[in-house]
Amino acid sequence: MAVTSARGMRDFPPRDKERRDAILDLIGETYQRHGFEALETPALEDSSVLHSGMGGDNEKLSFQVMKRGLGPDDFASAQESSDLSDLGLRFDLTVPLARFYATHHAQLPPVFRSFHTGPVWRAERPQKGRYRQFVQCDIDILGEPGMLAEVEVMIATADALTRVGVEGFTFRVGDRRLLGELLTSAGIAPDHHASALITVDKLDKIGAEGVMTELRERLPEGFDEAILHAVLTGGHGAFDAQAIGTLMGNTPTSQAVAAELVGWVSQVVSVIGEGMMVFDPTLVRGMGYYTGSIVEIAHPDLGISLGGGGRYDGMIGRFLGTDVPAFGVSLGFERLVDILDTPAVSHVDRVALVFSADSDTAHVIALKKHLVDTGHTVRLVREHKNMRVVYEQLVADGFSRVATVSAQALSSDDLSWRDLT
Amino acid sequence: MAVTSARGMRDFPPRDKERRDAILDLIGETYQRHGFEALETPALEDSSVLHSGMGGDNEKLSFQVMKRGLGPDDFASAQESSDLSDLGLRFDLTVPLARFYATHHAQLPPVFRSFHTGPVWRAERPQKGRYRQFVQCDIDILGEPGMLAEVEVMIATADALTRVGVEGFTFRVGDRRLLGELLTSAGIAPDHHASALITVDKLDKIGAEGVMTELRERLPEGFDEAILHAVLTGGHGAFDAQAIGTLMGNTPTSQAVAAELVGWVSQVVSVIGEGMMVFDPTLVRGMGYYTGSIVEIAHPDLGISLGGGGRYDGMIGRFLGTDVPAFGVSLGFERLVDILDTPAVSHVDRVALVFSADSDTAHVIALKKHLVDTGHTVRLVREHKNMRVVYEQLVADGFSRVATVSAQALSSDDLSWRDLT
Repeated sequence: MAVTSARGMRDFPPRDKERRDAILDLIGETYQRHGFEALETPALEDSSVLHSGMGGDNEKLSFQVMKRGLGPDDFASAQESSDLSDLGLRFDLTVPLARFYATHHAQLPPVFRSFHTGPVWRAERPQKGRYRQFVQCDIDILGEPGMLAEVEVMIATADALTRVGVEGFTFRVGDRRLLGELLTSAGIAPDHHASALITVDKLDKIGAEGVMTELRERLPEGFDEAILHAVLTGGHGAFDAQAIGTLMGNTPTSQAVAAELVGWVSQVVSVIGEGMMVFDPTLVRGMGYYTGSIVEIAHPDLGISLGGGGRYDGMIGRFLGTDVPAFGVSLGFERLVDILDTPAVSHVDRVALVFSADSDTAHVIALKKHLVDTGHTVRLVREHKNMRVVYEQLVADGFSRVATVSAQALSSDDLSWRDLT
Repeated sequence: MAVTSARGMRDFPPRDKERRDAILDLIGETYQRHGFEALETPALEDSSVLHSGMGGDNEKLSFQVMKRGLGPDDFASAQESSDLSDLGLRFDLTVPLARFYATHHAQLPPVFRSFHTGPVWRAERPQKGRYRQFVQCDIDILGEPGMLAEVEVMIATADALTRVGVEGFTFRVGDRRLLGELLTSAGIAPDHHASALITVDKLDKIGAEGVMTELRERLPEGFDEAILHAVLTGGHGAFDAQAIGTLMGNTPTSQAVAAELVGWVSQVVSVIGEGMMVFDPTLVRGMGYYTGSIVEIAHPDLGISLGGGGRYDGMIGRFLGTDVPAFGVSLGFERLVDILDTPAVSHVDRVALVFSADSDTAHVIALKKHLVDTGHTVRLVREHKNMRVVYEQLVADGFSRVATVSAQALSSDDLSWRDLT
């Protein structure tokens, strides 16, 4: 039988693992410097946490873990899978973070900057570039009421992307409140906003005319099509508060939110430079929990999103009972791994010792230990008829030098090294 | 409602996370130097892999993940939980490693030294020091037929324990083949060996007389009690091949295995020094898959095991179809975290910038970025009525200096730092 990892889930052999760890370490180190602190939550959460209605469509994709000790009677009386399951694998890191904050807030600083990374699981149909276990990499600021949260998170995100070697990324920026003002101004009642936004979110796929057609189908008649059409076809814009406020409904609220948005964006720009941020009036981002600023990290050359995030001031209150302002950005770690050309081997000094059947093993071991103690990474290799194959493997695995252990090599100083590269 | 992590599973807030990562990084770095290469396998494996009969009692503790799209008809017809589940969470790292090797052996070196760490899950009743998600930390050598595998693994393990700061540990060493010879010599047929070993494994709990009583109950009459009693009451011994071979059945095989054991142990001793290894004639180790050398890491002062391992030459063959020799040791990472006094904060330069409501945020942000760029870890803190509480939190979180951002501090050179420690 062919034995493989479970469908849609991947093994990472040493070279892949090393690349992934190197990228993640650099991101983590950058985020730490920016004041974000690493934390960890378990892979499993109570179903009541995962299915609290905050996870949007992802809740439907959660893997459910069976209760223990069930028998045929339990199965026969079960009407739905939740009757047989009280735990599930997390489908994102935001819901567990909100639960974590509710559990531990008393011991955390009033403004808590978190760095939360780890695997998440989704029961999706596996396809190219889409996995059932994948790593997310989130930073969030919890408890900061002002837009300083947006500013710190975006600057740290830009720094992390730059340090791992991503070039040419852009932050698309919008605000859920502006979308709300726009829809209200177009005569669409708040009850229909969620439905309308699901349609607007399809702009990239079905185009402005497609969105208008679907809106006509989904919404009651009588909304102002011209206002919406102008926004849908207007493309991205500059950060001009007046122009944004006018475009997005031209209400006192839209003007105030636009001024706030332009204010925090300008602070980010003052640090990361011009030309990396654009106002995207039609940016929606799927999750239902966003309440203010929303961002998406675009890579125009690649046509993919490298991550995104937003403000979700209502979520923690669901667990804690008191609302806590929150803003965070999630990096699509798997996509970063795909697009970066970080080398598959890190810069450690790897050396190989070749020994033969008649070598004194105690001697070989002593030489190895001495090299380890002096900071080398050492692999022992048994002598082989075809040393070319052996050397090729060593080069692929990042080894730079090889020496054959002879009886004469009493100390590691006596070894004669041969360069492999 | 009180919101907590799922029963038996833990959150790690920043200071805990930092300690754990520091210990794990040091172990990983040590193992890497010794030639062990990090790999990763998914948390979920196919049930057919997890329940291949290699996991012993732990198989019964595996969390099962429900199949997707099940309805009442499926539930009603299900006779056991496996009818509703085809995936499970791994309960150890050895079974997934054997599966990984079977999947990827063609691209791995002929002798593969693996470092495999990550969480595992067991549906145990939660109790002090026993968790339902915990980290294991394994090294294994696959494909090495000789005892060099034992030698390299034990030297690397000793080095890792020493480097993280464990003092006074001991390696208890035995061999399953010696136990087999002993039982055979006592007139116990091979069919009854597994059952007898389960009883011998209880020696620490029920004592020699307890073991003898239980053996009399479990085994057919007529075995030689005196031979067994001598071993059960003899305590640990020195590495004298002749004495061990004689004690453990005094057969040609027991003498040969004893010589082999003393041979590899002496090579380990030549590197790690005398006094850290003892021969334990009654060491069994629970898992059914061990076929040769077995080891346990004891800490006499603490009365606990810090890990253990052994040779399991038959397991990979179950997946691959061809037997591959294998020897590995697993460190009990959670116990290491409990006993070590590794500091809760690492040695990074953490500084805090205090700003007030009337501070120019753009100015604060620019100062922060400059400090980040020059290698500091920076936290922004809003000025507060009670700064003592703020400072206490900063000290607890490992911050060494604080400065207040004034309009005069145009560059970070102008900041006046105050030591917190």
